[in-house]
Amino acid sequence: MQQHYDSLGKARANHVPMSPLSFLSRADRLHGDRTAVIYGETRRNWRETVARIRAVAGGLRTLGIGKGDTVSVLCPNIPELLELQFAVPLTGAVINTLNTRLEAETIAYILDHADSKLVIVDSELIPLLQRSFALMGKALPMVEIVDGPTETPQDLDRTSYDQLLAMTAPEMDLSLPDDEWDAIALNYTSGTSGRPKGVVYHHRGAYLMALGTVAGWQMPHYPVYLSVVPMFHCNGWCHPWVMAMLGAAMVFTRVPAPDLLLAAIRDHGVTHMGAAPIVLQMLTEQEGEAGTRFDPPIKVMTAGAPPPPSVLERSRAMGLEVMQVYGLTETYGHIAKCLWQDSWEAASPEELARLQAQQGIAFPMVDAVAVIDRETGEEVTRDSREQGEIAIRGNTVMKGYYKDPDATAEAFKDGWFWSGDGAVVAPDGYMQIRDRLKDVIISGGENISSVEVEAVLYKHPAVQAAAVVAKPDEKWGEVPCAFVETRPGETATETDIIAFCRAHLAGFKTPKSVVFAELPKTSTGKIQKFELRKMFG
Amino acid sequence: MQQHYDSLGKARANHVPMSPLSFLSRADRLHGDRTAVIYGETRRNWRETVARIRAVAGGLRTLGIGKGDTVSVLCPNIPELLELQFAVPLTGAVINTLNTRLEAETIAYILDHADSKLVIVDSELIPLLQRSFALMGKALPMVEIVDGPTETPQDLDRTSYDQLLAMTAPEMDLSLPDDEWDAIALNYTSGTSGRPKGVVYHHRGAYLMALGTVAGWQMPHYPVYLSVVPMFHCNGWCHPWVMAMLGAAMVFTRVPAPDLLLAAIRDHGVTHMGAAPIVLQMLTEQEGEAGTRFDPPIKVMTAGAPPPPSVLERSRAMGLEVMQVYGLTETYGHIAKCLWQDSWEAASPEELARLQAQQGIAFPMVDAVAVIDRETGEEVTRDSREQGEIAIRGNTVMKGYYKDPDATAEAFKDGWFWSGDGAVVAPDGYMQIRDRLKDVIISGGENISSVEVEAVLYKHPAVQAAAVVAKPDEKWGEVPCAFVETRPGETATETDIIAFCRAHLAGFKTPKSVVFAELPKTSTGKIQKFELRKMFG
Repeated sequence: MQQHYDSLGKARANHVPMSPLSFLSRADRLHGDRTAVIYGETRRNWRETVARIRAVAGGLRTLGIGKGDTVSVLCPNIPELLELQFAVPLTGAVINTLNTRLEAETIAYILDHADSKLVIVDSELIPLLQRSFALMGKALPMVEIVDGPTETPQDLDRTSYDQLLAMTAPEMDLSLPDDEWDAIALNYTSGTSGRPKGVVYHHRGAYLMALGTVAGWQMPHYPVYLSVVPMFHCNGWCHPWVMAMLGAAMVFTRVPAPDLLLAAIRDHGVTHMGAAPIVLQMLTEQEGEAGTRFDPPIKVMTAGAPPPPSVLERSRAMGLEVMQVYGLTETYGHIAKCLWQDSWEAASPEELARLQAQQGIAFPMVDAVAVIDRETGEEVTRDSREQGEIAIRGNTVMKGYYKDPDATAEAFKDGWFWSGDGAVVAPDGYMQIRDRLKDVIISGGENISSVEVEAVLYKHPAVQAAAVVAKPDEKWGEVPCAFVETRPGETATETDIIAFCRAHLAGFKTPKSVVFAELPKTSTGKIQKFELRKMFG
Repeated sequence: MQQHYDSLGKARANHVPMSPLSFLSRADRLHGDRTAVIYGETRRNWRETVARIRAVAGGLRTLGIGKGDTVSVLCPNIPELLELQFAVPLTGAVINTLNTRLEAETIAYILDHADSKLVIVDSELIPLLQRSFALMGKALPMVEIVDGPTETPQDLDRTSYDQLLAMTAPEMDLSLPDDEWDAIALNYTSGTSGRPKGVVYHHRGAYLMALGTVAGWQMPHYPVYLSVVPMFHCNGWCHPWVMAMLGAAMVFTRVPAPDLLLAAIRDHGVTHMGAAPIVLQMLTEQEGEAGTRFDPPIKVMTAGAPPPPSVLERSRAMGLEVMQVYGLTETYGHIAKCLWQDSWEAASPEELARLQAQQGIAFPMVDAVAVIDRETGEEVTRDSREQGEIAIRGNTVMKGYYKDPDATAEAFKDGWFWSGDGAVVAPDGYMQIRDRLKDVIISGGENISSVEVEAVLYKHPAVQAAAVVAKPDEKWGEVPCAFVETRPGETATETDIIAFCRAHLAGFKTPKSVVFAELPKTSTGKIQKFELRKMFG
């Protein structure tokens, strides 16, 4: 009878807030003696790593960090960034990892918008951060991670990461958040508008992402994981949290240079990695001639764009077992996967490339990934022809956009999160992207807002109208291409325009080519970008 | 800032009640064409299976079943029982699977205590159910599953399962429960007292159990799963829900006869199974001489008691890769596992048997499995010597005992669920049971309450005092042994006592031997069972 069932309430024993922080205690208790970190000469087991995480969290508390504060981090993939993925939330604060490739202007915007209370920064990136502070007109408290050979001016006001570790601080217990709906991370993403939006993750989603990644990627215990996916992208696709759960050894190289990655793979017996297609391309190019073949194969999760057929083929030959996944910052990363089917073994290389270019089917922790006709609200027919928009519903969809209720409401219309990606669905249920409905270019795994680049172009004195669209590129997947209409009587060269953009934008956002032409417009004067995209076939 | 983070509420797009019912839609959409059910000549894919589940749920609605109702099922492992694991909760009702080996008295008690509104029963078990109804003094509405050759009297008032399937019923959509804390299942367990207790599961726990099983057992997609674990034990260790998530093929044999199981393994390429140690023993005995070796090995999850060393050794030789797991009905089944360590490869057979007899470490979805000294409240030292009680905290701990707030509060004291199992912890964190603190005997995977058996013994006219304890047994793990003190002037033989018990108890609960002796007692007259257990070494 319902009343009897309903009378059984939640208790401490049977209702625990879901959080990836729970994996810390697991790592400490069950995997304590196993290697956690391999970086240069550094080796640390999980017990030591958890102890450092607790010490860092204690130090952050001493610096005044606590529940609901934002702590920003500007740092490449090194063990300290792994530690911070746990240490910051352990204090109750929210970790905001910054893309190290961004320009000072955007970093300044983010630090301000995110209400950051502290920035933890790698020495090498201090000059960039200082430019951001200058633009903000104020400096935030800083913790410096000394890792590379860079020397920082002695008189700079900051705490070192080692000091943080050594602070006389309250012993942090490995407690979980009060509520699994609490925020754990804040990740800025280039959306359709020029300004990046702050995507907030909750503990519940981060936990389910970890469990779901293991189930969906069919991961064993104790993998040897090569850290290539930048931990500033969706917290490294939430992989660091997974690794604590599984007692993995994580191998770091600071930079994703192919020779370093290949040496790490060989020296440490890497079993798993996540990497953008561009990294696969670099690896296969570096080793292509050598006839290298990893056996057993290395499992690689790749995302951002479908790897080109040639890269897939060469990866396979090299013993890299690639699974393309699909997702967005708003979905904590991967929520669909191009799961391998045994029947594909017989496919021709061209057919295989087509199959593996699909975005595939939903991960098990997502309620639904559907392709929906936004006019009718119905799912499209599975005929590989009818196009709709990819929509996602599930517990690994963001809490919302930070300080942007309008954008949040818009994103969550009609009970779905709308991806902005146009796609079709094959008869077997595998979906494939056909069109980018939002104005985003994905280049080498990085999202670029066309609008942001256009805004810079419009500042150029010779530019009357401008449109930036994605141009297919063998190496980067896509690159930004600028279409420019000059003012009457004004002239500019491609080199001028590119140099002007580079002065205001990060390298990866700068257009790689410029086309001077009259722009096709609607009767109301709106630029028809689809006409421009047609030029690239 | 906290207020900004907190202002982001739950929406339909980002907060979905966790429930294993969500795997139905997944199975239908993504695994629809894959085989779901293999049983004799019957083959059904997941699309057909999901359609049948919806039809059954619609039929149940038509029969008046809805939210918070209890629906009892008395049925061996056949495809209909798989369907009911989904169809009953889909109506909002709670599935109560009954152990088919129980005596009519206990079934009557459970049906009454559980407030059952309907019983779905396999033809073969109708006579047993009718005896229960007679004891209850009333009959409940019945749905008959016609599977075996048994003929049921025409005049019996019941609906057939096929009628249920064909009813003009509202089309059930695959909707999730309103609240993930809603009840999904009710499983009666023999506790320390004579009466079984009703363990209530919630959707949240059942969902996490499924995800955690895949992560902890390192399961691939599309396994071929042999259904051996009775689906009336913890809903088949929650495996049926896992199989919908992974698009598994499930193979059924109705009865766990070793020749049928071996034929199924060979004919259908079984990759995974769950089974009590007694089943492993039967399989290895059947095939021991034949030199059978399954390659690739079949993954077997086993529970109930550590398999004897000889069985482990022979299983290994036969290509059965056994992982012992530990859990209780109250924890949805397995929450700890004796995870294989590569370093064990070098162990001697005796050492290996000792290692694999451990209950091991926590599954990833549990917050903590600890061994605690109940006097100090502290965890025991990891020295394989200090003994404490296994305590569990996590989201796969029951909602509570049905209509038993006192027992629920007692079980959840101090923020833990207390298992009643005394254990030690090895330096590597693996725990091992050393003592049963509760008065339960586990025989062939079935729990037996000593108190219940003793209550029967006391009804015998010649018995003055009685105590039932577990006696180690090569085949069954443990068997109940009765110690009896006769009344002055009365006599009885072992055969008398056993026959008397058998008349009142299920076969597996009946003592296998009787010892006539004066019982050791404390000064206050309490029987000292530990003295009796000493007799068995």
